[in-house]
Amino acid sequence: MTTVAIAPSYSPRTGRRVDGPAESTAEEVAAVLDAAARAFPLVSATPPAVRAGWLEAIAWALEANADRLAALADEETALGGPRLLGELAKCAASARFYGSVAAAGHWVGALVDTVPGPVPSVLRRANVALGPVAVFGASNFPFGFGVLGHDTCSAIAAGCSVVVKAHPAHPRLSAALAELAVQALAEAGAPDGTFGLVSGFDAGLALVDAPEVSALAFTGSQRAGLALAERAAGREAPIPVFAEMGTVNPVVVTPSAAAGRDAIATGFVGSFTLGQGQFCTKPGLLLVPEGSGLAEAVATILAGAAPGPLLTQAIADGYGAGVERLTGAGGTVLAAAGDAAAGDGAVDTGEGGTGKGGTGEGGTGKGVATKSSRAKGGDAGGADEGTAFTARPVALRVDLDELQPGSPFLQECFGPMALVAEYASLGAALAALARLQPSLAGAVMTAGPHDPDAGPLVAALARQVGRVVVDGWPTGVATSWGMHHGGPWPAASRADATSVGSAALLRFTRPVCFQDVPAAALPSFLCDDNPWSLPMSRTSTW
Amino acid sequence: MTTVAIAPSYSPRTGRRVDGPAESTAEEVAAVLDAAARAFPLVSATPPAVRAGWLEAIAWALEANADRLAALADEETALGGPRLLGELAKCAASARFYGSVAAAGHWVGALVDTVPGPVPSVLRRANVALGPVAVFGASNFPFGFGVLGHDTCSAIAAGCSVVVKAHPAHPRLSAALAELAVQALAEAGAPDGTFGLVSGFDAGLALVDAPEVSALAFTGSQRAGLALAERAAGREAPIPVFAEMGTVNPVVVTPSAAAGRDAIATGFVGSFTLGQGQFCTKPGLLLVPEGSGLAEAVATILAGAAPGPLLTQAIADGYGAGVERLTGAGGTVLAAAGDAAAGDGAVDTGEGGTGKGGTGEGGTGKGVATKSSRAKGGDAGGADEGTAFTARPVALRVDLDELQPGSPFLQECFGPMALVAEYASLGAALAALARLQPSLAGAVMTAGPHDPDAGPLVAALARQVGRVVVDGWPTGVATSWGMHHGGPWPAASRADATSVGSAALLRFTRPVCFQDVPAAALPSFLCDDNPWSLPMSRTSTW
Repeated sequence: MTTVAIAPSYSPRTGRRVDGPAESTAEEVAAVLDAAARAFPLVSATPPAVRAGWLEAIAWALEANADRLAALADEETALGGPRLLGELAKCAASARFYGSVAAAGHWVGALVDTVPGPVPSVLRRANVALGPVAVFGASNFPFGFGVLGHDTCSAIAAGCSVVVKAHPAHPRLSAALAELAVQALAEAGAPDGTFGLVSGFDAGLALVDAPEVSALAFTGSQRAGLALAERAAGREAPIPVFAEMGTVNPVVVTPSAAAGRDAIATGFVGSFTLGQGQFCTKPGLLLVPEGSGLAEAVATILAGAAPGPLLTQAIADGYGAGVERLTGAGGTVLAAAGDAAAGDGAVDTGEGGTGKGGTGEGGTGKGVATKSSRAKGGDAGGADEGTAFTARPVALRVDLDELQPGSPFLQECFGPMALVAEYASLGAALAALARLQPSLAGAVMTAGPHDPDAGPLVAALARQVGRVVVDGWPTGVATSWGMHHGGPWPAASRADATSVGSAALLRFTRPVCFQDVPAAALPSFLCDDNPWSLPMSRTSTW
Repeated sequence: MTTVAIAPSYSPRTGRRVDGPAESTAEEVAAVLDAAARAFPLVSATPPAVRAGWLEAIAWALEANADRLAALADEETALGGPRLLGELAKCAASARFYGSVAAAGHWVGALVDTVPGPVPSVLRRANVALGPVAVFGASNFPFGFGVLGHDTCSAIAAGCSVVVKAHPAHPRLSAALAELAVQALAEAGAPDGTFGLVSGFDAGLALVDAPEVSALAFTGSQRAGLALAERAAGREAPIPVFAEMGTVNPVVVTPSAAAGRDAIATGFVGSFTLGQGQFCTKPGLLLVPEGSGLAEAVATILAGAAPGPLLTQAIADGYGAGVERLTGAGGTVLAAAGDAAAGDGAVDTGEGGTGKGGTGEGGTGKGVATKSSRAKGGDAGGADEGTAFTARPVALRVDLDELQPGSPFLQECFGPMALVAEYASLGAALAALARLQPSLAGAVMTAGPHDPDAGPLVAALARQVGRVVVDGWPTGVATSWGMHHGGPWPAASRADATSVGSAALLRFTRPVCFQDVPAAALPSFLCDDNPWSLPMSRTSTW
């Protein structure tokens, strides 16, 4: 009898552990991969409008089970019912969106090009689906970037079968979503193997190495994303790895905008503590004019905020270590959540409210994350008690000159931490932006559409980021045609790829040119009768 | 006084060496890179229609100097005046083509997406140029994939400055083309640094490592391409590497098509010996129906062909070694060029006409390439005599079952060599195709538009190649909107990229989304007055 490994499922609020589903055995992983490989030709040959129906079935199943799924997600993530119900609704809407993008057909890029000559040649070019796609979702969006999130739905929309690696931060939710998806897809008529789930670390490695897998989509930390990309590069036949990792997203407040400092400070604190700061689009750095009072306004507002649980003990540990590293490197605590209430003992962090490093500012880098005292349960299963994965949001003040390549301030600290730096001149702010790691998004807070400093700042950010926002915070990512959610390395592994929006499908395709192929031998969708009703360009247009 | 390294220039016809231009010093490389970095923002901000004018100036300069350039190219490549004049004319046409693609503007993918909501959000997405591009051209197309070839012109079209590494197989031509380009671009008003050339092995390495360089485009061997990609992956900030390498391109003759065997055999021999087989699109493998007589027809026609010089001694050596490796692995010589005339001593290969391996077929794998006896000139310069880099075209017969992953038959043998394999059934041919390395192109020879075997073969090839041709040879690559010249790994480093055709520009761009950016702060080309006259999609269309 073989021992079956059980994925542990933790409550971030209590640290309590219960048994999750069994991890996949090597045989189970092989079977899922085989099913995905067998399904792929059927999925890719299915008209995109029919695949849109499959995605509609997934959306409907999500909605029909919203309360149960959100409650389960809340048990494993502590992100809260309202946020999770909202995320589930957006996830369902995204599934429908990718279906509509698939059916609209622009992603095929179908083009018929008649090349003149003594014997004219006809080139028909189209993007075709790559093959089975392996998806590694994120801990912080259990729906949006989870089992049935952007990567899975855009891959199915593009004609690929999908194998998802269950995220260890929400194993029970992953299993529930997979069960729903398998049933919804079957009822909608999708081939067996269109979607599969595997669970466990070894299963994840097996996906990276599997010859059946044609592309990897990953959302998560830089460390994990780079490790995945490195392993995939060592395959006998390398495959594209679309890793959306994230770095420090900068927001610059122009001198004229600083007058609206309370609204900006409120928005900033709300944005960087949203979901306990566990967003790849978190504004991790606020650049403010010297003497604007913005840093102080941020401190006041943050002091009134409350601590809360992080997603996992590892994230809580990493967050605490990150804040310590940054305070050790010269960052000074501007404020921490709960400072305003510290006197009445509402926040029990041991060192809260104690000044550090001679700055006289409230709070300290220590004690922002609580170490769990949970017992190690091994493989034996069962439930055990623990301690909440609680963390205090904190803002650090950093000198602009400290923002240098290689400094720890340029590394993402995942969780509710942000840096505030003052600039003496716009030139100094522009120079600092150029020294940052490229990121997913950046924003400029302006005094209105004619703020003279907006143009240079937008231009500087456009060289460094995938999305530039004016007078908004980067944390909102609309699932829409014009969205680009990606960025230059190391924010993402591929600067040309997006994991949100209509172009997300393109990651899972490659172009093929059919030269002088007669109708009887063409893929049917490229024939002149255009059975998929694709937008079909003719020479000289795309 | 420093010693200046001189690039040697060889005549493939005689092996004679003369001095080429001086190789770039480290300081010169740094200056070229610095100029490219300074030019980039100016180049990318220039309206594409103006850049089209720069490319027109390059085209005009090529045409105005056609005879001189073709003569120089012939000295260094021995590809022959008519071929080189034709290639130059196509190169000039390509420069204009990329200019017209730039001006048409579809490559920008401009899209304005209004996201509904309580406060509607406006997302403007556009592809922006990456930065300076390093180009490593090929030996076999000194114009088309040379200093001013597809990579250079598509990169300038996309708004990038370009630094080319001179190819050691044609250093004098490279220098002459660069001189022309610099002058033409200056006269057309392009910024200094829009184009630069460096020369020498160390200069090439410096380009791969340079922080100024944002992307690499390479055309050449698998070995060199993979080495380049590996080095680039080790950069502190990795950059995209677009390496077009090529493998073995298969052509399948259907049973019904085999009746036209003489025309097919003639076409095949013409295609695989074109330019002495030094094409990445060379049909390297012909799959023919058993007993069709096609192999014998190929032998007869090839026997009447003539040997000729290869581009470099290294290619000639590699070719000879490759043919020996394949005959050693069980390939039997079907015929070699010159066999028909071997009796009168027209071909002096020592062993020509001697049967080998018990097949009784004419020719042998040995002696297909002549070793040069040229002296090593070191850095001292001057001219020395040598031996021609001559090679005999050869066709090898191989058993279908030998075409297995890992076998040497699946590795490209650069030069005028092709394999012929017979298949017993269409199923066997399809199974063999699936075992090949993916390639740039593949073709099916049919009995006409209703040949029942064409469909399955086209579908099988579409899974393996970037371009499927029916009733044509893969060696012709039209510079046109619908062309795709690329393929799955290891034919190319990026399956989604093409080095020929309108989509070639996309390699050198990445998308940026501008969210709620007011007109005054937007890049001007994205404003509603549309100064670049870009095709500008609105929500729900691309």
